Amino acid sequence: MKKIINLKKKFNKFHDCWSPKIIAGFNNQEIKLVKIKGNFISHKHNETDEVFIVLNGKLNIEFEDKTLVINEGEMIVIPSGEIHRPYSDEECKIILIERKNTLNTGDKKNDLTSPKNIWI
Amino acid sequence: MKKIINLKKKFNKFHDCWSPKIIAGFNNQEIKLVKIKGNFISHKHNETDEVFIVLNGKLNIEFEDKTLVINEGEMIVIPSGEIHRPYSDEECKIILIERKNTLNTGDKKNDLTSPKNIWI
Repeated sequence: MKKIINLKKKFNKFHDCWSPKIIAGFNNQEIKLVKIKGNFISHKHNETDEVFIVLNGKLNIEFEDKTLVINEGEMIVIPSGEIHRPYSDEECKIILIERKNTLNTGDKKNDLTSPKNIWI
Repeated sequence: MKKIINLKKKFNKFHDCWSPKIIAGFNNQEIKLVKIKGNFISHKHNETDEVFIVLNGKLNIEFEDKTLVINEGEMIVIPSGEIHRPYSDEECKIILIERKNTLNTGDKKNDLTSPKNIWI
């Protein structure tokens, strides 16, 4: 099934933060959209690298050794097993790419843990 | 190794069309940038799905059953094994995501075949 996916239209379909929505699958990976604002928990994903592409806003990611600021039009790959904590003062719009069936809070479970398989 | 990748700066590093440049790897996949203008050959990739995200311009993809137009801010996943021919009147800037070690012309080899492992 080949279909055109409009990113802006997909972002308009949801308003909650920290809850990734799947828009496409390929090669056992998933492409998700997520809105980010405020603080997230420190966590890691042992089973997947994680790609963040920032479409709007300014994303901070705190690692054990440093904090990086990823601006609009920039991206980063977080290697599997690497502890990270994303946070942002203002709402960011992010494309997230990671292995299928990845939990947003990785090795942790708390109030921020979101269902894994929400397609929009 | 965690580093911030600026898409615009990476696009400024090359000018040739139809020759994908790798900017990141994750989960045995590669994220590539490619500039597209003019006509490409009809081909398929039996070993990988292929994601096209259009950052600038208007990308046409001719399939066996239809032609789709993917505009700026839109994306598409081409399933493995699906014959496709990308073309564009004006230069497009594209993010391409596919399995590591994928040849741009897939099952074909001709003058448009580009080296597989060029990082920028």
